[in-house]
Amino acid sequence: MSKSFIRHAQPGFRWEDVELLAYKAAGEAPFREVTRQLLFRADALGCELRYFEIAAKGHSTLERHQHAHAVMILRGRGACLVGGEVRAVGPHDLVSIEAWSWHQFRANAAEPLGFLCMVNAERDRPQLPTADDLAQLRQSREVAAFIRP
Amino acid sequence: MSKSFIRHAQPGFRWEDVELLAYKAAGEAPFREVTRQLLFRADALGCELRYFEIAAKGHSTLERHQHAHAVMILRGRGACLVGGEVRAVGPHDLVSIEAWSWHQFRANAAEPLGFLCMVNAERDRPQLPTADDLAQLRQSREVAAFIRP
Repeated sequence: MSKSFIRHAQPGFRWEDVELLAYKAAGEAPFREVTRQLLFRADALGCELRYFEIAAKGHSTLERHQHAHAVMILRGRGACLVGGEVRAVGPHDLVSIEAWSWHQFRANAAEPLGFLCMVNAERDRPQLPTADDLAQLRQSREVAAFIRP
Repeated sequence: MSKSFIRHAQPGFRWEDVELLAYKAAGEAPFREVTRQLLFRADALGCELRYFEIAAKGHSTLERHQHAHAVMILRGRGACLVGGEVRAVGPHDLVSIEAWSWHQFRANAAEPLGFLCMVNAERDRPQLPTADDLAQLRQSREVAAFIRP
């Protein structure tokens, strides 16, 4: 057993031996001030556990894909769009994102929004919305306000 | 999209629409004051995310199995045995339990120890230690002190 079976938490939602990664490559998709840390990726588990953190006023990419997400908020407050609905989220809330649901997270103005996301290790690439998809999403006033550029 | 895509956290590390379950059937294996909540189990994900809580002074079963565990401490402090080593754990620490590693968690005297555990949805049953296994584990004084009855 290597001594690394524990990776201790460090201040500021960082972990020993866990690299702070860019959320996505710049220019790949619209997002604002998001970081990513890969907490668990083991061949024996079919899933990964990641920690994403969106800075205050930041947001993740509006996207959808075949694979599902299982999310637990770890810090901060914000809101998420899943499918056609927007909900406020706070610490330890659970968010289920099913296949092909449009989804996006936004941090409140005052603090970062950090969350765990469990996902299949093998998964498809996200799709970005087309102009038609955006027009359809914006039929809901609530959604239109949420996905503002 | 059903309105249940969010299950809000409730006081005391409980969640909306998540049942508080017994850790194991009584008599099935040695443990003390542990509860279990199944936070995510979706067919689309090959894994489950569970929340276990061990009451102050309680402990999980000393066991091993082929499947792996990926653990994040969520509340409290305690210690864990993995393989032949004992480590202190606290909030947000990450614990990797590989195939066939003996493992056990203990809560400190002062507060419950709560943790997330990601695991394969399809998995083998845990094995309990034989007398020979226990004798071997107890060759380490640290481990012997930890796995006291």
